Amino acid sequence: MTPSASPLTTDLYQLNMVQAYLDRGEDKEAVFEFFVRRLPPRRGFLLAAGLQDALDYLENLRFSEADVAWLAATGRFRSNLLDYLKAFRFTGDVEAMAEGTPCFPDEPLLRVVAPLPQAQLVETRLINILHFQTLIASKAARMVLAAPGKTLADFGLRTAHGAEAGLFSARASYIAGFDGAANVEAGRRYGIPVVGTMAHSFVQVHDDEEQAFENFARARPEGVILLIDTYDVEAGARKVVALAPKLKADGIAIRGVRIDSGDLAASARKVRAILDAGGLKEVIILASGGINEDVLQRMNEVQAPIDGYGIGVNLDASIDAPSLDCAYKLQEYAGRPRRKLSPGKETWPGRKQVWRRYDADGIMCGDMISLAHERQAGEPLLVPVMRAGKRLAPPPPLADIRAQAARALQRLPAPLRRLRQDQPYAVTISEPLRALAADIEAEARGR
Amino acid sequence: MTPSASPLTTDLYQLNMVQAYLDRGEDKEAVFEFFVRRLPPRRGFLLAAGLQDALDYLENLRFSEADVAWLAATGRFRSNLLDYLKAFRFTGDVEAMAEGTPCFPDEPLLRVVAPLPQAQLVETRLINILHFQTLIASKAARMVLAAPGKTLADFGLRTAHGAEAGLFSARASYIAGFDGAANVEAGRRYGIPVVGTMAHSFVQVHDDEEQAFENFARARPEGVILLIDTYDVEAGARKVVALAPKLKADGIAIRGVRIDSGDLAASARKVRAILDAGGLKEVIILASGGINEDVLQRMNEVQAPIDGYGIGVNLDASIDAPSLDCAYKLQEYAGRPRRKLSPGKETWPGRKQVWRRYDADGIMCGDMISLAHERQAGEPLLVPVMRAGKRLAPPPPLADIRAQAARALQRLPAPLRRLRQDQPYAVTISEPLRALAADIEAEARGR
Repeated sequence: MTPSASPLTTDLYQLNMVQAYLDRGEDKEAVFEFFVRRLPPRRGFLLAAGLQDALDYLENLRFSEADVAWLAATGRFRSNLLDYLKAFRFTGDVEAMAEGTPCFPDEPLLRVVAPLPQAQLVETRLINILHFQTLIASKAARMVLAAPGKTLADFGLRTAHGAEAGLFSARASYIAGFDGAANVEAGRRYGIPVVGTMAHSFVQVHDDEEQAFENFARARPEGVILLIDTYDVEAGARKVVALAPKLKADGIAIRGVRIDSGDLAASARKVRAILDAGGLKEVIILASGGINEDVLQRMNEVQAPIDGYGIGVNLDASIDAPSLDCAYKLQEYAGRPRRKLSPGKETWPGRKQVWRRYDADGIMCGDMISLAHERQAGEPLLVPVMRAGKRLAPPPPLADIRAQAARALQRLPAPLRRLRQDQPYAVTISEPLRALAADIEAEARGR
Repeated sequence: MTPSASPLTTDLYQLNMVQAYLDRGEDKEAVFEFFVRRLPPRRGFLLAAGLQDALDYLENLRFSEADVAWLAATGRFRSNLLDYLKAFRFTGDVEAMAEGTPCFPDEPLLRVVAPLPQAQLVETRLINILHFQTLIASKAARMVLAAPGKTLADFGLRTAHGAEAGLFSARASYIAGFDGAANVEAGRRYGIPVVGTMAHSFVQVHDDEEQAFENFARARPEGVILLIDTYDVEAGARKVVALAPKLKADGIAIRGVRIDSGDLAASARKVRAILDAGGLKEVIILASGGINEDVLQRMNEVQAPIDGYGIGVNLDASIDAPSLDCAYKLQEYAGRPRRKLSPGKETWPGRKQVWRRYDADGIMCGDMISLAHERQAGEPLLVPVMRAGKRLAPPPPLADIRAQAARALQRLPAPLRRLRQDQPYAVTISEPLRALAADIEAEARGR
């Protein structure tokens, strides 16, 4: 299920460290947690995503003979490492938040408990998967909240950062509530509904725009979306009106039109009026081109007669915040909690749990981060998902993850549903966790 | 050589349009050009990259039985399209700018001339490759210019947007003048020098930081880079000084130290003083953590004693400008130039060439965009690279592309070498191209 990336999709220092660990037999149980350090500007929450691809990675990570031979040929590694990689199987345990769960800084999204060399080796790719899908799901959730009742589709593959970014964007945005993606491979790989219209080039190869519309409609008789802004959007809409009866006589439906440029709200109003006057009230209007959550909110506020949106690079590259400050940090080794003290990068030590409380209406009203063994009020968000390298349950259908995310988004407090954030969500740290952090800091400073 | 992405890494509308073209035998010669519409804020130029991966894609694009079977099972396509895909071979011609060429808005970086269904089908993935590698090479070039004499390495895989983004970032930044990448697969796939240090977790699993340094150094006796800021950077440096003679006695060298947090310039000065006083003048200092071109320039201005930098997400996600406004546009079909008139998206029609002039010192002093058949003063930048689907020459070694880029960057005018841009480079449009654009517009408006 996961896009196959080479097992050498890792940083050299992971292999160097594993070499050093193997040399000294340093393979006791290590605990790493993945978390985000802070929210990007204007964001009030994140939406966890990427878990199923991360688990696929852990279950299927193997080094082929060719992989190991290439590493051997670099002359950097000794036979103990090369043999270790040849036989590599991830045998650790994983706890994680379900995909589609709203989450906040310092809250672990995933915990790996495994022999140290294993837990270290998987760091780079685990972050690579979880960071990006969480980034995109979080961005997409803002768009979904800003466009109630509208159809949203991921059109961003072309300017996504490579093929896998396009695939992961389609998946993460679908989880967050998008309705589909233009990416055909996303349909095959993940079962995401694949959607598409037509390009300006199709109109341009025809000498006549109406002829272009007719040819495209006859090729897709189940209902097409015609792109009407290549030359003049109102003239394009009138051609659709003129063409519709002729096509209808042949049993061919025009499902909608797309506008990709200009003042979208104003164009949509003019187009809606032309279509309605032409008896095409059921023909929908899609818009694309520079759509982000602010545009969606503005369109919603002015009640632009737009039924759906195709969203490109603003989604796939999360333009306003193209990364999250995140980490996969060692929290415990050989039974002892660990804590990094680098300036500005202190972390909460030990194995942790997140407890979420809801008010009487079922709305989220505060999280607590505790040590894993504590019992606190609320719902524990980290649950066991892998034991000894094997998933505890088959991956849920993507539609189920999406439905779960939709329910979770309905439980967000009202201030977090807005695009601009002024009331941060309350995340508290339990007393035992604070005490442990203070103990470890005192010990390290004294070292 | 190219990372293998599924041939279904495309937008559904490409397949829909190809279906319509096949239905009507619309397969005359089409000319598409890839270009960037405008520069991101603060950028004065772009550096073309991605061509060799794009050509690999064109040469190797095939649809397997399984690919076609999946498409058939969607029920969206007819047998003429499915048969076409089964037998698909790209048979077109390509002209392009060499990778590592500085380039500007409206200048075609690549032209595809092929039967219409072929030229349309490859659009999405061609943009996906060229956009991202050009984006990253352009960002990396700014860093290279801001850090004269410094070693730069791509550390960004973990927060790159998926595995392929990490791979493409390593390649594009190496072309622009980076010295290596931490990404192991980039070493295998592209022959890029792979570099690496150690992580904080390595220090944390040891009860004693000096012991951690010693264990790591003994595992990598050819010369390690020790990360010294896990607890206290000055204490870390003193431990390195204490450890060095003991290691040296065993023939083990410490090559450098890395600082990943805090005030990098101030820390580097203190660390340099400690190392020098301890007789470790040859031990280099690397810095990482939040490095971008502005930090590099500041470090250069204050002459921070830092020898090299590891650069992460600011490079791999091109944080300040995570996308380019670019297009792959139909410029000519069946021998007639075409032009799109959508508001704000007008394009220059026809097959084009870019002519670059240099002053007496060999510095770039102006480009002209002309029709391809014109002869203008200067060096023509688009050259034939593929004929009838076959490369005209084997891919140049990446080191040669990098050397060519370095020479090209030396020929940039001084204002373009600065991080902030106030003097745009002169790109003019030839008279025949202007006349053609006006003709087509008049004709289309009158339609």
